[in-house]
Amino acid sequence: MESIKNRRTIRRYKLDEIPNYLLKKILKTSFKASTTGNMQLYSVIVTVDKDMKSKLSPAHYNQTAIQTAPVVLTFCADFRRFSKWCEERKAVPGYKNFQSFMNATMDALIVAQTFCTIAEENGLGICYLGTTTYNPQMVIEALKLPSLVFPITTITVGYPNEHPNQVDRLPIESIIHEETYKDYTSADIEKYFSYKESLPENQKFVIENKKETLAQVFTDIRYPQKDNEVISENLFKVLRQQGFLD
Amino acid sequence: MESIKNRRTIRRYKLDEIPNYLLKKILKTSFKASTTGNMQLYSVIVTVDKDMKSKLSPAHYNQTAIQTAPVVLTFCADFRRFSKWCEERKAVPGYKNFQSFMNATMDALIVAQTFCTIAEENGLGICYLGTTTYNPQMVIEALKLPSLVFPITTITVGYPNEHPNQVDRLPIESIIHEETYKDYTSADIEKYFSYKESLPENQKFVIENKKETLAQVFTDIRYPQKDNEVISENLFKVLRQQGFLD
Repeated sequence: MESIKNRRTIRRYKLDEIPNYLLKKILKTSFKASTTGNMQLYSVIVTVDKDMKSKLSPAHYNQTAIQTAPVVLTFCADFRRFSKWCEERKAVPGYKNFQSFMNATMDALIVAQTFCTIAEENGLGICYLGTTTYNPQMVIEALKLPSLVFPITTITVGYPNEHPNQVDRLPIESIIHEETYKDYTSADIEKYFSYKESLPENQKFVIENKKETLAQVFTDIRYPQKDNEVISENLFKVLRQQGFLD
Repeated sequence: MESIKNRRTIRRYKLDEIPNYLLKKILKTSFKASTTGNMQLYSVIVTVDKDMKSKLSPAHYNQTAIQTAPVVLTFCADFRRFSKWCEERKAVPGYKNFQSFMNATMDALIVAQTFCTIAEENGLGICYLGTTTYNPQMVIEALKLPSLVFPITTITVGYPNEHPNQVDRLPIESIIHEETYKDYTSADIEKYFSYKESLPENQKFVIENKKETLAQVFTDIRYPQKDNEVISENLFKVLRQQGFLD
C-alpha cells in the first residue's frame, strides 16, 4: 500500500535500461489480474528501439516522457487472438461489436494499471499517455496493429530522474457515494474544490494561461469541447476501421 | 508483487464485515492512482445495505458473489462533478461526448484495479462483475445515477470463504509483441492455446456444455454474437441517455 500512497507520475527518466528479466517478470505478474471470462483480451506492444520511439513520438505530441523513457508500452484491446483461436476450433467468433470492444478495453486497462503498481513497487516510475486515443491511427500504423486490435493507453516506464511533489486529490467524500448517488450542490462544489483552487501551483497555472478561473484552463485550453468532439468522431471512425463497429 | 502473483478471484465470502476505516483507507489510497489531467473522472458507489444489494442483484443475474459479499462497489465514469465545477466557475464544460466518456472510463478502471490490488494485499478477496455493462440501465436506476455518470464495473469484496485453484493464463509470449504486432499463425494458436485446452477443468467444461471444442463454449454459450450485438445497441442507447453522445 505504501508505494501507491507515495506515488507520483514520473516524466523524466535516467538513462539506465530496465533489465529485460525484470520487465518480463512484471508483465507476467500483471497478467494474473482479472480478465473477462479468462479470455485475456489484451496485447502489449513493447517499444525499446530508438527508431520505433521516434515513429510513435508524434502521436503523443513528442511529450518529454516518451522522449526519455527506456521503455514504452502500448496496451491494446485485442479480440484478434481470441477470434483466431475460435476460427481454428470450429467456433464462429462474434466480437466485431462495441460491447466486445468495451470488454477488451477493460481487460487492457486492468492489466495496464496492475503493471504500473508492480513497476512502482520495484522502484520504477511510470507515466500514462492519454494521447493514445487522440491519434489512434498513428499508433496503429507505427505498431502495425491489425483489425480487432485497438490501442487504449500508453505507459512510459523507467528509473525516475525527478522527484516531483505529489499532486493534490479531491477529498474522498467527494468521490464516494453511500448507497445512492448524492448529487452535488453549489455548496458541495465550493467545499470540495476550494483546496485545489487555493494551491499556489494551480493559481500559477491560471495566471500563466491568462484565465480567470482554474476550471477555464481545462475547458478553454487543456480539454476544450471542440477538440473532444473532433477526437470523438475520429474514435468512431477508427473503431469502425479496426472492425469493432461492424 | 507476491499477493498479485498468488491472487485468485473470490466469489464466496465470510459473513465478517469489512471495517469501515479499512474500506475507506483502501479507497483513499486507490485515489492516488493516475487520472486524466488530475480531473478524477470517477465516482464510487458503496453498497452495504441489504435492500440495496437486492435491488442491484438482478442486474448482475443474482451471481453468488453479489449475494454473499459484505460490500459491493460500483465504479462509475463521472464527468458530472467536474462539469458542475466548471459551471460554478464561469467555464463552459464540453464533455458530453464519446472521447470524454472514454477518458472517464479509463479513470474509473484504473482506480477500480488499484482498489483491488490493495484490497487483496490486505487479505480481502474480490470479484469483477462484467455484467455492469450488460444491464447499465438497471444499475443506473438502482443507484440513481444522473446524466454524465455511467456505471463501468462492479466489484464485490469481502473476506474469502473459499480458496479456488488459480486459473490458467496464456504464455506471456502470446501477449507481448516486440516493437510491432506479430500476427498469429495457425501454428501459433496451436502452441499458445494447447495448454489451456489440455486442462481437465476445461475439458470438463466442454463435455458439460455438450460442445466439440472449448472455443465453442465461448462463442455458442458464454459470449455469443447475438447477445453481444444486443448489448452493444443498448450500450449506445444508454450512453446517449446519460448524455455522453450529445
